[in-house]
Amino acid sequence: MPHYTKTDFPVDNVRRFLEPGPVVLVSSAHRDETNIMTMGWHMVVEFQPSLISCVISSANHSFEMIRKSRQCVINVPTVDLAAKVVKIGNCSGRDVDKFAEFDLTAKAAVQVRAPLIEECYANFECVLVDASQVNKYNVFIFEVVQAHVATAPKYPKTIHYRGDGEFMISGENTRRYRKLFRPEML
Amino acid sequence: MPHYTKTDFPVDNVRRFLEPGPVVLVSSAHRDETNIMTMGWHMVVEFQPSLISCVISSANHSFEMIRKSRQCVINVPTVDLAAKVVKIGNCSGRDVDKFAEFDLTAKAAVQVRAPLIEECYANFECVLVDASQVNKYNVFIFEVVQAHVATAPKYPKTIHYRGDGEFMISGENTRRYRKLFRPEML
Repeated sequence: MPHYTKTDFPVDNVRRFLEPGPVVLVSSAHRDETNIMTMGWHMVVEFQPSLISCVISSANHSFEMIRKSRQCVINVPTVDLAAKVVKIGNCSGRDVDKFAEFDLTAKAAVQVRAPLIEECYANFECVLVDASQVNKYNVFIFEVVQAHVATAPKYPKTIHYRGDGEFMISGENTRRYRKLFRPEML
Repeated sequence: MPHYTKTDFPVDNVRRFLEPGPVVLVSSAHRDETNIMTMGWHMVVEFQPSLISCVISSANHSFEMIRKSRQCVINVPTVDLAAKVVKIGNCSGRDVDKFAEFDLTAKAAVQVRAPLIEECYANFECVLVDASQVNKYNVFIFEVVQAHVATAPKYPKTIHYRGDGEFMISGENTRRYRKLFRPEML
């Protein structure tokens, strides 16, 4: 299992790890229960405040936990956790204590009660700021209030879902197009 | 420049190409004008109807064109178009006819007036179905009503933005975790 040393990271730059589109793990806590779900549908909405929109299906056990606690942690797993990520997405918190079942470490967050998943490359502590499209689309908008990111490697090897059991694994990272940007667009 | 032969593709499976998180090009038409913008913030919201949520900043010339015409095409470029994708994102349709300037082919769509970008791997014709969060967050929800996808290669090599001029390029594709899925989750 991966072990990452992490440091505080600016919340207005979490796009660095979310915008490329990795599958993430969402951890939550409500009353005396914790849970983890696998999530593929998310996007950045704003830098400041740091807003993330995402879809959490009402079929998930996490749905009510997050809706009621109004908090979660978005965790970015790397490819070495891929099998666990799939298994987490294929069972329910109704039946399984996922931290115990998948031997993952729940670490205390700073600003929310939902636990960080220690084995992930990055952990973004989130509070629910807009639930107006939860009923219609299962869309939640969160503000990232604290971010923890591994000090190395610079680029995590993430997994990106295509449906039908297929994943794309993140490839080369490049700055070769950087010179084509206007300075104010960087 | 890439040349793809395309075929109709089921709209309820466009997640295959969008969920991995590539930068896309959004083409639009309003009155006698067309335009193209580069977009990194998008997510799948539903399979049926095929809904895509995305952020189109009001600072973009495309914003009013799309808000008023209530249509666009989401085009998926491959890495061979990366320099053009960056340049398209670093100039404005107020000043430039982007199809002409970047030597891209505007092809007639089937169900919308916005043109397809012929040189892209996939083209998703979209109609605006929910503008309720446009004013607050610049978030548009589109329904994909027609999809055109290249017959080869099976997996496009896409570009994924990290901010600060850096891109991740899509890597290996794998079905090695497929056996871990419950059949109804595929």
